[in-house]
Amino acid sequence: MVKTQSLKHVLCLVCSLILNVFFLFKVGGEWNLSWSKKAATEAEAVAAISCSGHGRAYLDGLVLDGNKGPACECNTCYGGPDCSQFFPDCAANADGGDPLFLEPFWMQQAASSALLVAGWHRMSYSYSDQSTICKELERHIRKLHNIVGNAATEGRYVVFGAGSTQLLNAAVYALSPDNSSSPARVVASIPFYPVYELQTDIFHSVDFHFQGDTSLWKNKSDTNTEVIEFVTSPNNPDGQLNKAVLHGPNVKAIHDHAYYWPHFTAIPAPADGDVMIFTLSKLTGHAGSRFGWAIIKDKVIYQRMVTYISLNTMGVSRDSQLRALKLLKVVLAKGGRGIFEFGHEMMRKRWAKMNKIISASKRFSLQKIMPKYCTYFQKIRGASPAYGWLKCEKQEDKHCHEVLQAAANITGRQGSLFYAEDRYVRLSLIRSQDDFDLLLHKMNELVVGEEGPKST
Amino acid sequence: MVKTQSLKHVLCLVCSLILNVFFLFKVGGEWNLSWSKKAATEAEAVAAISCSGHGRAYLDGLVLDGNKGPACECNTCYGGPDCSQFFPDCAANADGGDPLFLEPFWMQQAASSALLVAGWHRMSYSYSDQSTICKELERHIRKLHNIVGNAATEGRYVVFGAGSTQLLNAAVYALSPDNSSSPARVVASIPFYPVYELQTDIFHSVDFHFQGDTSLWKNKSDTNTEVIEFVTSPNNPDGQLNKAVLHGPNVKAIHDHAYYWPHFTAIPAPADGDVMIFTLSKLTGHAGSRFGWAIIKDKVIYQRMVTYISLNTMGVSRDSQLRALKLLKVVLAKGGRGIFEFGHEMMRKRWAKMNKIISASKRFSLQKIMPKYCTYFQKIRGASPAYGWLKCEKQEDKHCHEVLQAAANITGRQGSLFYAEDRYVRLSLIRSQDDFDLLLHKMNELVVGEEGPKST
Repeated sequence: MVKTQSLKHVLCLVCSLILNVFFLFKVGGEWNLSWSKKAATEAEAVAAISCSGHGRAYLDGLVLDGNKGPACECNTCYGGPDCSQFFPDCAANADGGDPLFLEPFWMQQAASSALLVAGWHRMSYSYSDQSTICKELERHIRKLHNIVGNAATEGRYVVFGAGSTQLLNAAVYALSPDNSSSPARVVASIPFYPVYELQTDIFHSVDFHFQGDTSLWKNKSDTNTEVIEFVTSPNNPDGQLNKAVLHGPNVKAIHDHAYYWPHFTAIPAPADGDVMIFTLSKLTGHAGSRFGWAIIKDKVIYQRMVTYISLNTMGVSRDSQLRALKLLKVVLAKGGRGIFEFGHEMMRKRWAKMNKIISASKRFSLQKIMPKYCTYFQKIRGASPAYGWLKCEKQEDKHCHEVLQAAANITGRQGSLFYAEDRYVRLSLIRSQDDFDLLLHKMNELVVGEEGPKST
Repeated sequence: MVKTQSLKHVLCLVCSLILNVFFLFKVGGEWNLSWSKKAATEAEAVAAISCSGHGRAYLDGLVLDGNKGPACECNTCYGGPDCSQFFPDCAANADGGDPLFLEPFWMQQAASSALLVAGWHRMSYSYSDQSTICKELERHIRKLHNIVGNAATEGRYVVFGAGSTQLLNAAVYALSPDNSSSPARVVASIPFYPVYELQTDIFHSVDFHFQGDTSLWKNKSDTNTEVIEFVTSPNNPDGQLNKAVLHGPNVKAIHDHAYYWPHFTAIPAPADGDVMIFTLSKLTGHAGSRFGWAIIKDKVIYQRMVTYISLNTMGVSRDSQLRALKLLKVVLAKGGRGIFEFGHEMMRKRWAKMNKIISASKRFSLQKIMPKYCTYFQKIRGASPAYGWLKCEKQEDKHCHEVLQAAANITGRQGSLFYAEDRYVRLSLIRSQDDFDLLLHKMNELVVGEEGPKST
């Protein structure tokens, strides 16, 4: 017979594990934890390390000499062993898109969002259907889009990537001609997310080249060249609900919907593009998990994206997929109301505060975003964008980034990085509360001081 | 002051969380778990689902209609709700490199390898040093190489990737000339891992082309072209400790050391290549976690790899990094003896059993691997390779893969996939015990039946 000694060995092991757990189960009561207790205790001990509300300790943080647990990692401008020290001369960080504004939400949902991973969880290269896609997670993603009403999913394919980052390039690859004499022309509308260009160009591919702003190609009828247009809606940096600029039989669009969630925008209707990309980073705030997904209409494009992801990384980390599933379960509770009301309220207030300060200024202005009916909240709602797209209005303030840095010690992201004028600067509104508060404080001082010191 | 209402709000939240945990802490006793209990209970409940030792249930498994928990996922050739049904006509799966031979080890280490992830764990794009590399994990990786003695790490840089898969291509990119008129020639020695070619060619890069077998370029002194040689040691598929074939000022090597661990080979000396790639998949068996690392001598090459990983996926999932750290802590306990003795013993026995069967055959042969002194185990040790590289010796058996399929219902991986003759087939010895037992059983029947049915 096939059953050998070693098979018996494994069987015994598994049975003993099961029995072990079963004996500890109190009939009619709750589990008496066994093997999971050590991990749970470790996690609670780390969470209990006090970092004064201005930092946190992590399970994988550096363990300093003489310490038993990991050290506090402090927010920008805070320091000391417990992050209680404030550095008043420190620059306000409004750079980068770290979505830590959602961190307090997850601290509130500590019990429902915690996840215990067994040592033998998903060791294989594939799930039981031989794919690298967790079907339960795909099911939850489709359900979420149906509830939020922000994307059509019926009859479409879903592919996972390591954040939207990996999927953007997978889509460029999938939409490009295969070994054609004429490479696809990849374009985007200024101001646009710089990764589009950097990523498209890194390999010097024969099949696709980045060719700048869409407006350059608007009235040209070169039907011999395939065109791939990045359409970012809401747009990063300015929050506008962009639509495709180029049209025609040889034009394909990659719809980057990273910010198309009720935190940041009204949802006027479900997005319906042929290639749509979403990411966990700006939905739940878990940028570190590197998880995104694409919704694809055409089977051939879908298959080409799957090939790319497979040869590039053999699918997405099963640990990220497990985490994403756990988080989406929390998101879906109460039809999404929990996280979207929290997120929208937070962003709406931050925008209102920033707007109030800037509206008193003659030197600076912010982008205008029109109120729109939101099918998710079922009401007309104002702006709550992820970023302020600040303009220096004075003729001489050509380098707005330097103006903010020099006059107020604020670090934004310069307009030229988005291929716009340096008269613009992007201010991140989605960072931690500490970062936002400091930004607001410094911006306020700057604007109040515009007319010179007031007489008291 | 900067401290606003919202800051106080976050502070209160964090304090309440901390107090909550502190009040539940029994002085001098053990933690009385609070928010982590639900997750721990869920994980133990799933682990307790009986799948008869021929399958397992996972937290993210499909939940079938009418069921409360996820369904059992059965090993190949097993089925039924609890995987107790054996399908005798099913093919033995010796394809693919799923390293499930280590799964029983992790079941034995249930308590030390379990991991509890808090909902707010590492949401940011970066660690506190602004990198995408967990320093604690890097420290553990360096420590591991020092203990095992399989790679020189001092004064070298470490970069992480989503498995070795992502790093192989990152290395090709990093070693290629930038926009040169002459693309780098990427080569490997037959038989070689097919991903080298597929991955190198997917983008049709101007900077590098795959150009087949190293032997074609051995005596050519074309010093105008950069050459990148993949050196796989131990080699996939045949387990040999390959060395670089090409040499010269324009030749660079990527040393793929996925299998350079005591499970699979003697460790004669620390590997010392300029670019060395390792992966968790074949060390701990966690292929699904997609975690690998490269050890790089040259700073410029290191920086180019970091750029690639950053633009490709913005670093490796922090969830994978956290999991890898937890697993490496278990690996490092007892100086690695636990996992390496388990892994080596398992692979040695499997190889011995397979060899015993094949040595009785005139139709088939296996590769020979010479015994070598192992600096880790401090003794001469025989072979324990990850794969059998089986040869069909009969003149007419040109397609060994089909011979095995037709005569014994065994699915291997055909030699031509490794750019070798189809007279060879790769048999995976690292899969689950069920898969190996079935392979052994069918192989034995095939060999016993070589001379026709014996008279009794």
